[in-house]
Amino acid sequence: MNLTEKKIDGRVIYEGKILKLELDEVELPDGSMSKRECVRHSGGAAVLYVSDDNVLLVKQFRYLYDKEIYEIPAGKLECGENAAFAADRELEEETGYKAEILIPLLKIYPSPGYTDEIIHVYFTDKCKRTSKKPDEGEFVDCEFLPIDKVLKMIEGGVISDGKTVAAIYKYIAIIKK
Amino acid sequence: MNLTEKKIDGRVIYEGKILKLELDEVELPDGSMSKRECVRHSGGAAVLYVSDDNVLLVKQFRYLYDKEIYEIPAGKLECGENAAFAADRELEEETGYKAEILIPLLKIYPSPGYTDEIIHVYFTDKCKRTSKKPDEGEFVDCEFLPIDKVLKMIEGGVISDGKTVAAIYKYIAIIKK
Repeated sequence: MNLTEKKIDGRVIYEGKILKLELDEVELPDGSMSKRECVRHSGGAAVLYVSDDNVLLVKQFRYLYDKEIYEIPAGKLECGENAAFAADRELEEETGYKAEILIPLLKIYPSPGYTDEIIHVYFTDKCKRTSKKPDEGEFVDCEFLPIDKVLKMIEGGVISDGKTVAAIYKYIAIIKK
Repeated sequence: MNLTEKKIDGRVIYEGKILKLELDEVELPDGSMSKRECVRHSGGAAVLYVSDDNVLLVKQFRYLYDKEIYEIPAGKLECGENAAFAADRELEEETGYKAEILIPLLKIYPSPGYTDEIIHVYFTDKCKRTSKKPDEGEFVDCEFLPIDKVLKMIEGGVISDGKTVAAIYKYIAIIKK
């Protein structure tokens, strides 16, 4: 069955710092017409850093959920930026660590119904401290938490960030075993 | 450190079928002002159905990635709808299966930088076939794939949907072992 949807027309509703919203008119497989609300995003990069069974997490206020949440260090790709480079840059900006090696762990489509974002997640178990101070405007706390505690926090709904949850369970399922 | 951001003002940029986009003006912890681009979403629900080490997946064209992708059956919560009810409804609409039991597996924030969506993922190993035909306008194929094959598809980048990846690895890490 050919399931392709063909773009017939489209317009930009909003273009901001983080995202662009487009409203496209598409032709469905049966020839009927529909609309697609499209959040265009440059992509994200994240690092799971595990050292001696401790996971490096950042805690930051997320306005969309109106609370502080735990996540692995991550950020948005700058225009044309290589994902591994972005991952290492965000790691250093948020935590002051720099990876000595970065291994691709996951490529995630966070919510394919309305966003084209791709989140590239890397794994490292080797970092060094740099002298870099957190970037101005980055209000984040970072801390190492034992992986068993992190698992309990996921189970208890305290950690819900998608890239973090996927990375931790992949680490447990594949790397650690 | 208090990291709270306080809403000062806001306006609705767009309100559609899937999402609402708001642009809020916020006060940061240091007293400076910033803007937050907010995709408001009613939430999602999904079901990981594993039967004899086979995983039920749906393949559908996702316009945002311009290709067909594999996902666990899922959909959007209708206004005020219970998440478990929505998960079971979407499962039946997309695949013709109805769960006899649904166990909460994950609560996921797919991309906390710009969306408030919460995806509720359930697990089941017991379903029955219903006579229901796929909904009109639902262009999806569904199939059972062996879990070992699904893992290889994730490793190979063929499956990248966030809720699916997180659910599969949690199943391997916690339930199956």
